[in-house]
Amino acid sequence: MLGQLLLPELRELIQLNDSAGLREFLNALHPATCAEVLDQVSPAENWSVLASAPFEKQAEIFGYFEPARQMRLVESVERPHLSKLIETMAPDDRVDLLKEMDPEHVEALLPLMAQAERNDIRRLLSFPDGSAGSIMTTDYASLSEHITVAEALDQLRRQAPDRETIYYIYILDDDRKLDGFVTLRTLILARPNAKLDEIMERDVFAVRVDDDQEKVAQVMAKYDFLAIPVTDNQNRLVGIITHDDVIDVLQEEATEDVYRAGAMSPLEDSYLATPVRQILWKRGVWLVGLLATGFLSATALKHFRPNATEAEWAVAFLPLVLASGGNSGSQSATLVIRALTIESLSRADCLRLLGRELLMATILGLTLMLEAFLLAMFLETPSKAMVVAMTVFMLVWMGSMAGTLLPLAFKKLGMDPAMMSNPLIAALVDITGGVIYYSVARMVLSQT
Amino acid sequence: MLGQLLLPELRELIQLNDSAGLREFLNALHPATCAEVLDQVSPAENWSVLASAPFEKQAEIFGYFEPARQMRLVESVERPHLSKLIETMAPDDRVDLLKEMDPEHVEALLPLMAQAERNDIRRLLSFPDGSAGSIMTTDYASLSEHITVAEALDQLRRQAPDRETIYYIYILDDDRKLDGFVTLRTLILARPNAKLDEIMERDVFAVRVDDDQEKVAQVMAKYDFLAIPVTDNQNRLVGIITHDDVIDVLQEEATEDVYRAGAMSPLEDSYLATPVRQILWKRGVWLVGLLATGFLSATALKHFRPNATEAEWAVAFLPLVLASGGNSGSQSATLVIRALTIESLSRADCLRLLGRELLMATILGLTLMLEAFLLAMFLETPSKAMVVAMTVFMLVWMGSMAGTLLPLAFKKLGMDPAMMSNPLIAALVDITGGVIYYSVARMVLSQT
Repeated sequence: MLGQLLLPELRELIQLNDSAGLREFLNALHPATCAEVLDQVSPAENWSVLASAPFEKQAEIFGYFEPARQMRLVESVERPHLSKLIETMAPDDRVDLLKEMDPEHVEALLPLMAQAERNDIRRLLSFPDGSAGSIMTTDYASLSEHITVAEALDQLRRQAPDRETIYYIYILDDDRKLDGFVTLRTLILARPNAKLDEIMERDVFAVRVDDDQEKVAQVMAKYDFLAIPVTDNQNRLVGIITHDDVIDVLQEEATEDVYRAGAMSPLEDSYLATPVRQILWKRGVWLVGLLATGFLSATALKHFRPNATEAEWAVAFLPLVLASGGNSGSQSATLVIRALTIESLSRADCLRLLGRELLMATILGLTLMLEAFLLAMFLETPSKAMVVAMTVFMLVWMGSMAGTLLPLAFKKLGMDPAMMSNPLIAALVDITGGVIYYSVARMVLSQT
Repeated sequence: MLGQLLLPELRELIQLNDSAGLREFLNALHPATCAEVLDQVSPAENWSVLASAPFEKQAEIFGYFEPARQMRLVESVERPHLSKLIETMAPDDRVDLLKEMDPEHVEALLPLMAQAERNDIRRLLSFPDGSAGSIMTTDYASLSEHITVAEALDQLRRQAPDRETIYYIYILDDDRKLDGFVTLRTLILARPNAKLDEIMERDVFAVRVDDDQEKVAQVMAKYDFLAIPVTDNQNRLVGIITHDDVIDVLQEEATEDVYRAGAMSPLEDSYLATPVRQILWKRGVWLVGLLATGFLSATALKHFRPNATEAEWAVAFLPLVLASGGNSGSQSATLVIRALTIESLSRADCLRLLGRELLMATILGLTLMLEAFLLAMFLETPSKAMVVAMTVFMLVWMGSMAGTLLPLAFKKLGMDPAMMSNPLIAALVDITGGVIYYSVARMVLSQT
């Protein structure tokens, strides 16, 4: 919204080619706001505006563009400018960018950067997507435990300008092993001549470099930390993950779960920033696959078809019975997937969960069975209404059990439980549902 | 996990009635971990353990319990202890607790507290759920702009112990109006005799006390703030919202969207902490309602029923055509709901979104039409396969349009777009789908 309000002013400055005015414009605004306005001009204009500011400012603003926009910008700038920009960016932001880029392009850029930055980039690039290492930054503040508070504040003042945060300071021994941490709040409150090893907190929660980013987010959300240290397998500090990265992870994971519940592959960018072709693909793959399972259900129904007179009355209730199974199944799946995502369930918890779902499936099944019977009585005879009601009970029960067991099974197999659970359950109910329905019809109606 | 490991040690200390040992146990652990262990003992034991620690510690730990657990604990402690505990809790935590409690119980507790705390509580309680005011804390650090950096640090040292954060310090004029802010990092780096009005940032992003918490989360996530100030309608500072509250809001909102996509009302606590009766209700209401819409579809199908020979072949494909409409509809709804939640869409953006959905509905419809035709040819004649294929096209298109327009309409009406969209779309497709299907069958087959 702010971005659109500021656009006319930016356009005017661009037309006047007023480089001092542009610099002032960029300085007055938060980098996120700058990115929002610049998003609306052409890549060439974007670069000419950015060029008016120092590289530090450029790098900060660039970090706030969405990946799709970054890619378009990267293609329209000369290599020396780009390599300098990347050198200046925060370690975690630049690695996100380089991961999106064509590997050949990256290899061409790296030799233009300083050795130290190059090494840092190569190391961060080596961590797999979704690991703690892939979202951490190496710009952390650290001190030795043998100095005093006054010395610590002095050293911090020197470290501060290029550290992502100086509010949590990590205390390392000579091997860079993590011994403890101290907050800036504690430092400010302590006697200037106290030693750090007297005031530091030795009980540090750290994550491993190869831990899942979802686990990192869980720990941070639970303990309300501002930052969490990341260590290698020898307990040496290699980076930190800050609260803003965790917010990004939480939004990413939640969005993924929502997309999966909606029967499609997750988008990486926002909806309007994602090319239509890409969304079509992410939707199409699922729809084509689900239609194929629909074909299985058609085949089953064709081979198991009732005689013409049965079909005539029964078909009216087919969507009703299938939907009730699908809905209860997607409820169970949603509950189980959320529980698996947010809580860390022990074996006993999983059994409790299974017990609860069994109980609820039975109670909900009986309730809906009664409702279905009463409603169906408006349209059909009691025995036919009974067929509908019994089928509803069975499908609600079956859907709910599938919704409970599938995500647990996916989790056990090391897969994402949110993956394909909802549509798979609906497909399962559709394929078996019709067959169950007609079997019940035959059984009940042949007896009356 | 940690909670279970520590339980035996805690049980032993309880049995020995070792109050010094218990105090040490609670002091050694992070309050969140304490809450996790204590969650596994009885409310009476819980209180006897907590009583070994000072009220500050008790209040901190108590804030980490889930609401359901807090309610159980509140019922098993005497009023004087409880009122003292509530007095000590962080303003935002205690208001969350009091909101859950029975109003009569709250009224009985308030007279036991100090006047200042009571006023603070009454004011915070007056903000509606989901507003910025309802999640803010009043424990912020603030300074006047006329003092020097050295004086500021001195004053901060005095404020620090009971402030939620001292990393962002808000600068107020004599009317408590928000003039700017300064970070502790800036203070540490500044000359000790500089005046605050020389170094403070005047461009402050603030939210209003009645802003939606979702808006607060969006701003915090976008700008990577640690805290954001909350002002009243005269721009006076009334509270702050910190990064950990935002993480809670984001998790809450994401969870709500996921539950709604899964056709049920959102749970407030975690799955295992929520009583079965409550989950049954939240699921049952939806299932009963959706079954009733299923009855509408059955009525429509019964009155619009094809003759027996038509029904016999056509019924096999009914689940397939309905599912394809439902799936494409829930994809569109998911995309639009997410876009409405995460991005702030202008009128032009909404039109672009509508255009994209129209285009995609057509392309996906044609793709699935072709697939449906080819698959149906395995089971039926070309003209019957054509009936299936044409119906698939129409339902995919209709589902997708419903999935786009319903959330936009809900948003326009000031309702939560995630509310009921997915199941409503499925019901709509089910009710009209069968009728469309048989109409197409009659039209096409009467011509051949």
